[in-house]
Amino acid sequence: MTKTKIVVAGPRGKMGSEALRMIEKEERFDLVACVDRKYDGMKVKDIPSLPAIDAPIYEDMEQCFQNVSPDVLIDLTTPEVGYKHTKLALQYNVRPVVGTTGFTNDQLAELESIADEKGIGVIIAPNFAIGAVLMMQFSKWAAKYFPDVEIIERHHDQKLDAPSGTAVKTAQLIQEVRTSKTQGHPNETETISGARGADIDGMKIHSMRLPGLVAHQEVMFGSNGETLTIKHDSINRESFMTGVKLSVEKVQQLNVLVYGLENIME
Amino acid sequence: MTKTKIVVAGPRGKMGSEALRMIEKEERFDLVACVDRKYDGMKVKDIPSLPAIDAPIYEDMEQCFQNVSPDVLIDLTTPEVGYKHTKLALQYNVRPVVGTTGFTNDQLAELESIADEKGIGVIIAPNFAIGAVLMMQFSKWAAKYFPDVEIIERHHDQKLDAPSGTAVKTAQLIQEVRTSKTQGHPNETETISGARGADIDGMKIHSMRLPGLVAHQEVMFGSNGETLTIKHDSINRESFMTGVKLSVEKVQQLNVLVYGLENIME
Amino acid sequence: MTKTKIVVAGPRGKMGSEALRMIEKEERFDLVACVDRKYDGMKVKDIPSLPAIDAPIYEDMEQCFQNVSPDVLIDLTTPEVGYKHTKLALQYNVRPVVGTTGFTNDQLAELESIADEKGIGVIIAPNFAIGAVLMMQFSKWAAKYFPDVEIIERHHDQKLDAPSGTAVKTAQLIQEVRTSKTQGHPNETETISGARGADIDGMKIHSMRLPGLVAHQEVMFGSNGETLTIKHDSINRESFMTGVKLSVEKVQQLNVLVYGLENIME
Amino acid sequence: MTKTKIVVAGPRGKMGSEALRMIEKEERFDLVACVDRKYDGMKVKDIPSLPAIDAPIYEDMEQCFQNVSPDVLIDLTTPEVGYKHTKLALQYNVRPVVGTTGFTNDQLAELESIADEKGIGVIIAPNFAIGAVLMMQFSKWAAKYFPDVEIIERHHDQKLDAPSGTAVKTAQLIQEVRTSKTQGHPNETETISGARGADIDGMKIHSMRLPGLVAHQEVMFGSNGETLTIKHDSINRESFMTGVKLSVEKVQQLNVLVYGLENIME
Repeated sequence: MTKTKIVVAGPRGKMGSEALRMIEKEERFDLVACVDRKYDGMKVKDIPSLPAIDAPIYEDMEQCFQNVSPDVLIDLTTPEVGYKHTKLALQYNVRPVVGTTGFTNDQLAELESIADEKGIGVIIAPNFAIGAVLMMQFSKWAAKYFPDVEIIERHHDQKLDAPSGTAVKTAQLIQEVRTSKTQGHPNETETISGARGADIDGMKIHSMRLPGLVAHQEVMFGSNGETLTIKHDSINRESFMTGVKLSVEKVQQLNVLVYGLENIME
Repeated sequence: MTKTKIVVAGPRGKMGSEALRMIEKEERFDLVACVDRKYDGMKVKDIPSLPAIDAPIYEDMEQCFQNVSPDVLIDLTTPEVGYKHTKLALQYNVRPVVGTTGFTNDQLAELESIADEKGIGVIIAPNFAIGAVLMMQFSKWAAKYFPDVEIIERHHDQKLDAPSGTAVKTAQLIQEVRTSKTQGHPNETETISGARGADIDGMKIHSMRLPGLVAHQEVMFGSNGETLTIKHDSINRESFMTGVKLSVEKVQQLNVLVYGLENIME
Repeated sequence: MTKTKIVVAGPRGKMGSEALRMIEKEERFDLVACVDRKYDGMKVKDIPSLPAIDAPIYEDMEQCFQNVSPDVLIDLTTPEVGYKHTKLALQYNVRPVVGTTGFTNDQLAELESIADEKGIGVIIAPNFAIGAVLMMQFSKWAAKYFPDVEIIERHHDQKLDAPSGTAVKTAQLIQEVRTSKTQGHPNETETISGARGADIDGMKIHSMRLPGLVAHQEVMFGSNGETLTIKHDSINRESFMTGVKLSVEKVQQLNVLVYGLENIME
Repeated sequence: MTKTKIVVAGPRGKMGSEALRMIEKEERFDLVACVDRKYDGMKVKDIPSLPAIDAPIYEDMEQCFQNVSPDVLIDLTTPEVGYKHTKLALQYNVRPVVGTTGFTNDQLAELESIADEKGIGVIIAPNFAIGAVLMMQFSKWAAKYFPDVEIIERHHDQKLDAPSGTAVKTAQLIQEVRTSKTQGHPNETETISGARGADIDGMKIHSMRLPGLVAHQEVMFGSNGETLTIKHDSINRESFMTGVKLSVEKVQQLNVLVYGLENIME
């Protein structure tokens, strides 16, 4: 078995260290180096918070690519750094998997055109949680047939904003296909304000916050005599790694830039 | 087996006709007559919408009691009529089971004192749904240990008011035992108004309305690392009959007036 | 607005009478006749159990088609009768929507070839419950990414067989795409036999039976740190009508035979 | 505010270290010492895996009690050691809170009699998860009115035994009050063996095992037209600490031995 040679940029972040653990467990993957703005010349195993992998750390990505010739770069840094890394990777024919929501449209267009020119796959993902991506895709599909829908999201009580970003994004995706309508009885009234939740285009969103919860969402569709519910429960960051793993596999079969996991999951 | 001899007042209402069907199915119960403001002298089986039971219909309750000497009266009429019926039943030593929310405190006190004097059981129930009553009792119990709680109630989209009466009543019962607190993060903000639901004493209530739903409620408690949820789903009026049946059995063992099914379910 | 002219065959069955009620409510649909083996020459409104629609009843389908020139035939009879009806409808350029699981492969092939030749749409559906069809499609999609899955179906306690046909069909659809594996710990043991449920290709199916339930199914996928659940709750036969309605609309845009609602819902 | 002075025995175990963190966060509690078979003379803060609390560690419990005069002992060691500790605590008028399932009936009887004699409270708890204890108590209560019940428990796929101990215990508690009956249709058949789950006295238990799950249980009661569901979800060991905290508070108000959290939660 030829293993996929992987470089991880940003190994000390929460996502980065999870990525190292995922690579370590995955037989077909091989961590050949990390890129970090610290610890040049050291090994991954020398950093206490990281898994005991015998791979070198580079501060300079070009030098890294020249020395270890990886197949794939997993970039989990910041948008600014990630943008430079992605361009450099394409230059060295390394396929980038980038977790970010921060690239501008201009940056995306530029990266897309380089990928096209070189015929090299790139995956840029604002969200690596496959379960959440599927929940949103299923919801969009169901809304074609069931225009009556409400969303309930539940999070731990330390969360500051309501509704959650995922709930709003789900509603927006549904909005693209749903016949716009105000739900509930036309004469319904709230005897206590807020009971019917937040409103996006006539759809209702409800936000629960309790200790003991982590991150949960239900999208519930109703029609005569039936309801259809799509539910995602996430209890830790490990869940993102299924998406990172899938991206590493898929990026090697692509020859264009793909934005969003939903576009490699059809 | 001695069967319980039952008179039903209000047999043609939704609850009344369900009660007849319940009595018909129950081996230990016997429908000996109905009291209705119409159809005096006819039989129950002569009314097309009612089950084929060979019991006489009376317009006059006194005459009915004199003729059939029942053990129990199930009264499913209006508060005004029900009040008179209850007094008359006590006078004739018939034990009343009354489904109403409409008696005044004075009426209740008067009936209680007559029941005491005669040592005869009376059950007056604002809600015969045993499942809903248990849900509320469990919620009140759990709230002693879990002060963080949210309620989500789901109903068909023809319901006019939000939140539901049961949800508000549940919150009020919880309030009696819960240490008052505002839930969620102190700095939480709604980016879309209403997301966090209706507020009763810092508890949040969320009301969903969709076709395909009937009447559902979840009470969710959260604490470090765990949640406890109590959920009631009701799909039709049949569910009230379990409570009517239980009341008929219990009223025969009582020698006082009991208000609310929760007080015969401990 | 030109209304779709519809003939219903089998109007007195459970599905048939629901179909009449659906057509009556739907502005764009017009019931122009029914075909029944009884009541020739009478009107639908003359049959007590049916809605008060002023449409004629025919025993002979050819005569019916000649007189009322419908756009669509909804056939809710038996497989034998339905097969003849479908052929006849194609002959008269009437588009058939047929609810049946009973056609043989030979019959389907023959009907398909007639539909092709004439360029006329036909929809044959073993299941009109859109929600259930979507649940199965979503499950099949999710199983590509989440090979660990269990099914729990819940039905009223009068159901004789376990697991339900829908649960088995869901498992079979998942099996088409899922990497075969035995789930749970390799050394897991049942201290009470049956605890881990029924097994299809390493997937587990659990069947609950309780009074108060109608027809419910949950398909639950698990992966590191997350679960994804697809849930369908059906409380009455009305839910099939959303699928019949969709089929009537779609069959008019088709020029081939389509088997299974999933193939018009992509 | 007078703080409760607490000694923890077994501070380095999983439960023990959680207990230290709980005490540290709780304003009204004060960790005055730990008892450990190692590290005599050191401080808690000197042990890397423990919170930075400036409390001494003793190998000898008598010496510990003599030096720090605690109000309460939290014992999270083994049954053998815990038994000796409990006796010693009673001798020194320290109230013990002991987490164990391992005491024999003779040991319990002996400890109960010492507690009685001295009029000192003791709490011995096989399970500190308040949510799970309430779920079981509610289930026992509901079963009086709803004899039709099924249990579904869901755990991570590394769990070896099915059904879970909590599910079996719940069924046994229900059995104490439920009219024995075999559920489902008398003629129901399993077309795939195991579909209807494990059987305890006619009740069915279903065990799901998936990655992404932690420890979850639903107890579902059904009756005509309604279901009542009690659900407990536990995602980590922190949830036990709510029960330990409650026990520390209650043990100071008791003058007898109480076995099981359910007996201090009425």
